[in-house]
Amino acid sequence: QINAGRLLASLHALGQIGALPGGGVNRLALSDADREGRDWTVARMRELSMRVDIDAIGNIVGTFPGTEDLPPVMVGSHIDTVRTGGLYDGNYGVLSGLEVVTALREAGVQPRRPLAVAVFTNEEGARFQPDMMGSLVYVGGLPLPDALATCDADGVSVQAELQRIGYQGTAPVGAPLVDSYVELHIEQGPVLEQLGLQIGVVEGVQGISWTEFTVEGQSNHAGTTPMALRHDAALVAAQVAVFMRALSARLGGRQLATVGAVRLSPNLVNVIAQKAVFTVDLRNTDSAALAQAESDLHAYAQQAAQAEGVRITSRTLARFEPVAFDPMVVNLVEQQTQALGCTYQRMPSGAGHDAQMLARVCPSAMVFVPSVGGLSHNVREHTAPADLQRGAQVLLQVVLALANR
Amino acid sequence: QINAGRLLASLHALGQIGALPGGGVNRLALSDADREGRDWTVARMRELSMRVDIDAIGNIVGTFPGTEDLPPVMVGSHIDTVRTGGLYDGNYGVLSGLEVVTALREAGVQPRRPLAVAVFTNEEGARFQPDMMGSLVYVGGLPLPDALATCDADGVSVQAELQRIGYQGTAPVGAPLVDSYVELHIEQGPVLEQLGLQIGVVEGVQGISWTEFTVEGQSNHAGTTPMALRHDAALVAAQVAVFMRALSARLGGRQLATVGAVRLSPNLVNVIAQKAVFTVDLRNTDSAALAQAESDLHAYAQQAAQAEGVRITSRTLARFEPVAFDPMVVNLVEQQTQALGCTYQRMPSGAGHDAQMLARVCPSAMVFVPSVGGLSHNVREHTAPADLQRGAQVLLQVVLALANR
Ligand SMILES: NC(=O)NCCC(=O)O
Ligand SMILES: NC(=O)NCCC(=O)O
Repeated sequence: QINAGRLLASLHALGQIGALPGGGVNRLALSDADREGRDWTVARMRELSMRVDIDAIGNIVGTFPGTEDLPPVMVGSHIDTVRTGGLYDGNYGVLSGLEVVTALREAGVQPRRPLAVAVFTNEEGARFQPDMMGSLVYVGGLPLPDALATCDADGVSVQAELQRIGYQGTAPVGAPLVDSYVELHIEQGPVLEQLGLQIGVVEGVQGISWTEFTVEGQSNHAGTTPMALRHDAALVAAQVAVFMRALSARLGGRQLATVGAVRLSPNLVNVIAQKAVFTVDLRNTDSAALAQAESDLHAYAQQAAQAEGVRITSRTLARFEPVAFDPMVVNLVEQQTQALGCTYQRMPSGAGHDAQMLARVCPSAMVFVPSVGGLSHNVREHTAPADLQRGAQVLLQVVLALANR
Repeated sequence: QINAGRLLASLHALGQIGALPGGGVNRLALSDADREGRDWTVARMRELSMRVDIDAIGNIVGTFPGTEDLPPVMVGSHIDTVRTGGLYDGNYGVLSGLEVVTALREAGVQPRRPLAVAVFTNEEGARFQPDMMGSLVYVGGLPLPDALATCDADGVSVQAELQRIGYQGTAPVGAPLVDSYVELHIEQGPVLEQLGLQIGVVEGVQGISWTEFTVEGQSNHAGTTPMALRHDAALVAAQVAVFMRALSARLGGRQLATVGAVRLSPNLVNVIAQKAVFTVDLRNTDSAALAQAESDLHAYAQQAAQAEGVRITSRTLARFEPVAFDPMVVNLVEQQTQALGCTYQRMPSGAGHDAQMLARVCPSAMVFVPSVGGLSHNVREHTAPADLQRGAQVLLQVVLALANR
């Protein structure tokens, strides 16, 4: 049985680390706060007598032994946050994993297979792109040297930060080989709440495409430069943002599009921007539709740049095809949810998750619980305690079923 | 006679201070580089045996005595730059003033009225708003305490920075009373070059309106938040930028509109922006048309904000009506330009200048020289040496005529 009070207390304790004055958490990947959060989590694992392994990309795996020396059933998620994040995104999956281990120990239950609780590095992708970096490296989807060489907006590398915070470990990347993977997460969207359901049985993750555009125009004087002679990098960034919203509307909102980051230079009131660097986040559950949106985006960006007489270049920050989870694990989640008498529906995930990477190497699935107001990546992110408890209980049952099969 | 080599050498010497690696200058108002530039300029004034007065807003006035103790004829401009500025904007007016004094001393000519060379604080408005701050305070258009309390984007005040760089002087603000004011400046636009003319006889300055908008939406997850439920602060900023360009186009480009600065929070690829702070710079030679553009801007901003379900507020960073210069001084500039055999036209100024503030308290006008490619507020800002020489020669003649009348 999950102890809801203990789970909540641990969420709030971890939420103290990197806490923002007005609520919420800032624990960007590989920051000092991330180090503190890692230290705290590793200490919890050691209290549970788990073996702790840290690999070269900083993934932490705590292992609780099974009765047989088989590949473990893995649960987990991440503890990094966006700059203005909440207490639950990622943390809930990791701490529920530790709560499952705690509950098993308390009950004196040792499953057949070992149970591994993973903390993957830089899932958010808020500071270093791509997102899901640690799990992507874990499954061999991104070469370790490429990941380590990635720099944040200030030019600081993953490698340098891992060493600085003391989390570049020596465990072999991708070990242990995993039997199966289940990730418990808040939905981060409004669907379960709007339908009044308790559990989301997650069948897959939609496709994700992140592009960074760099527009280079000509800085000039806002008061003396005729409109017809301008090469305004900021205008093209704005036009692309407006176009993507319209494109999405034309598709009835099925194509998600977000321009969340923009940096102008010199970024002054009376200077036409010489440079604009901005990101476009596209999501779609349909692979072909996502590719079409990307091609529409690039065509429009080129056209807008040409009309304004500016240069535009782009690079892909992240690109993941839609992922379908393993039917065996999805069905198991559904059965255990039913067995516990929870209301639920099968659904895709809007957000990216480490589970979509693990799905490349082992049978995987996810469990969702509702997010109040559909808010996430927001300091007011919240999930009701009863929902947190239910989700963890489903996780416990699924893990036991997998580990004992 | 102006010594063109000496003038150029001084422009390049001052241009060393705050020089950017790839060319151009960063000497934002009241920065360390501004302090160095001021030190250099004051040293030049002292070499010319000028009396140097510094007032409480940091304006520097160097005075060369006349044969009679009358109010001085003032020339001058500013030596602060935007973050990616050139060698000429402002500096050319100040250093030409010093070159005029040097030439008069060399020739042993002492005019009837004293000659004052002014360096006004924070003309650019790039760091502290409004622009033309020093001259505005000088003419009593902005209370000194308000100017001193103004903060930059990092919350650092004018007062604190003036004290830090040692340029809060004790001379009474607005003294001396000025007989007349002439400012020599690069055009900063393409008009003279396109018409193949050597001198612009500036009749006035167009109206300037700077507004800062703050949009407050709701940060949320880019992958899970349906388009219809978004409150995207960045989108509204983009929509306003696109609308203003369209408005300007509808008016045949007569209304200038620039969104040059945008700051998003949290400014991350996968987070819908909670907040956008952006500026709109509007210019028009026609007072009523400028007011109409402002009202169109505010109406659209409100409407866009309402459609997106976000809050929008605004504050005025600068607001100056179009200014007409004094016909006596304008005619004098025209006569001296003709007398020197220069090609010219009468024209308005697109940029704001200290002359538009001095025009409130004394007969004022300006002289323009061409800008290569119409570039300014750009590190590649350039004016041909022959043009620089001609402009300074016109200034010398106009100053002599004013000082001896
Ligand atoms: N779960 C989560 O917020 N992941 C961040 C990656 C994404 O943007 O979807
Ligand atoms: N001359 C000049 O660039 N002044 C700055 C103020 C403005 O934006 O017009």
